[in-house]
Amino acid sequence: MRDFSSNHSALALNTATLGHNVEGAGAGWSPEQVIDGCAKRGYGGIVFWRRELGNNAAKLGRLSREAGLEVVGLCRSPFLTGPLTLADDQAIMDDFHQSIDEAAELQTSVLTIVTGGPEPGTKGMSESQKVLIDRVARAVPYAAERGVRLALEPLNPAMAGNRTCLMTAADALNVADEIGSENVGIAIDVCHVWWDTTLTDTLLGRAQGRILGYHLCDWLADTSDIMLDRGMMGDGVADLKAIRSAVEGTGYQGLCEVEIFSANNWWKRDPDEVLDTIVERFRDCC
Amino acid sequence: MRDFSSNHSALALNTATLGHNVEGAGAGWSPEQVIDGCAKRGYGGIVFWRRELGNNAAKLGRLSREAGLEVVGLCRSPFLTGPLTLADDQAIMDDFHQSIDEAAELQTSVLTIVTGGPEPGTKGMSESQKVLIDRVARAVPYAAERGVRLALEPLNPAMAGNRTCLMTAADALNVADEIGSENVGIAIDVCHVWWDTTLTDTLLGRAQGRILGYHLCDWLADTSDIMLDRGMMGDGVADLKAIRSAVEGTGYQGLCEVEIFSANNWWKRDPDEVLDTIVERFRDCC
Repeated sequence: MRDFSSNHSALALNTATLGHNVEGAGAGWSPEQVIDGCAKRGYGGIVFWRRELGNNAAKLGRLSREAGLEVVGLCRSPFLTGPLTLADDQAIMDDFHQSIDEAAELQTSVLTIVTGGPEPGTKGMSESQKVLIDRVARAVPYAAERGVRLALEPLNPAMAGNRTCLMTAADALNVADEIGSENVGIAIDVCHVWWDTTLTDTLLGRAQGRILGYHLCDWLADTSDIMLDRGMMGDGVADLKAIRSAVEGTGYQGLCEVEIFSANNWWKRDPDEVLDTIVERFRDCC
Repeated sequence: MRDFSSNHSALALNTATLGHNVEGAGAGWSPEQVIDGCAKRGYGGIVFWRRELGNNAAKLGRLSREAGLEVVGLCRSPFLTGPLTLADDQAIMDDFHQSIDEAAELQTSVLTIVTGGPEPGTKGMSESQKVLIDRVARAVPYAAERGVRLALEPLNPAMAGNRTCLMTAADALNVADEIGSENVGIAIDVCHVWWDTTLTDTLLGRAQGRILGYHLCDWLADTSDIMLDRGMMGDGVADLKAIRSAVEGTGYQGLCEVEIFSANNWWKRDPDEVLDTIVERFRDCC
């Protein structure tokens, strides 16, 4: 491991960046190894995925904090709308509540919501956003009792067929306005919003105090796969400094969470190399 | 061929829908066969691609009109920004002028512009939009002399890495405003803009008389390829009637141009079946 002299305490690792236990990715590191790898480099935080927790949410949360890492969030709610949801409202809400329970066990204050796409049989987004608003609003009291805030994450419009009905920060803020709870905010992910020429105006104008998560990566000019070919910061065309400036211009003081899905590049590399590269790029490009 | 009793004169075929001479697609129909297939079904118009014209632009335009088809447009300008352009400004502008010449030879009044993405070495869109504005503005007099209008087409943000620096109708209108010529408008393509929850407001508020082309297809919920898996109208999740209503609410009286890139489905089917299906779906879903 190289020696990095500067302070990286604003940096958090989303474990997806090491392939989060996808077969063959991240050299098969366990969550404990990932915690150790981040801690010894001076990362400030970590974000887990539900699939990694098993029955160990409380333990992994404790190990992270003991290693000096804040548990910045949990990925993610089940899909709440669209063709990829569980069978019915009861099953969806049960799993939504369970994801809130897991966030509480981790002792993290943020659960990220990936909404899901248009409801089967509907066209466009308006009907689906109504369903989304209803389901999130019903979960808010349950989450609030457990100290968990809900972060609505807009996804790249490329995923609007079945994975999201929020395509922009403005969409997410509009839905949050309808829900009308201080417990509901938004998450900003570079790969999902980098293209939005109105982003800075939207964030500075409407998102004061409402950003609950900031996710870093880059958008490669020749992105080969919308889901699994995200770039390392500096390798793409997103204006990372402008986006961070807008995010922090809203008063956001949370960590910068690196989340890179990269099946054919970063997931295949030595996790030590990935974690080192993130530190370098965070210092130079973000 | 089935008998369709209603009038389909508002329908135009973009030849890409039959694979436009991609090896093995569209049963290898020649442009003349495509003209005949559209005419005998009562289509009102046709749109060609430059690759199909060879030295026959004037002839294909004449054959189309003799068959009762309006030549609605030509696809497309060369990329004007980003990593996929020709070598330098001179080469780009020469090819841009040549595409205008070909539109004039076809006797169509609209050339569609697909802009290209972020300029190499830049981040985000602002620098690239300046380059775009400069290059389009320089071509406007040349186009105007030849009776050709330029339609700025926003593309789905999924393509913003290297194929577009206009992601929304508002982006395209902003750039058109900067150019400030009545000869420059926008093109609205369902697959590129269907997800935009502000689309109707943008078009009704700002696009009166400025839409030069309306492209029909659908967005499949489980789109497998951003470029080449477009859906037939009715098979996806776009609100086609709402989009058409907004487009026509701007005063647009042009044709509805069906443009479906579908390497693994519609391009593999019998062109007669494709042309029949379009007529049915246009009547029922659009």
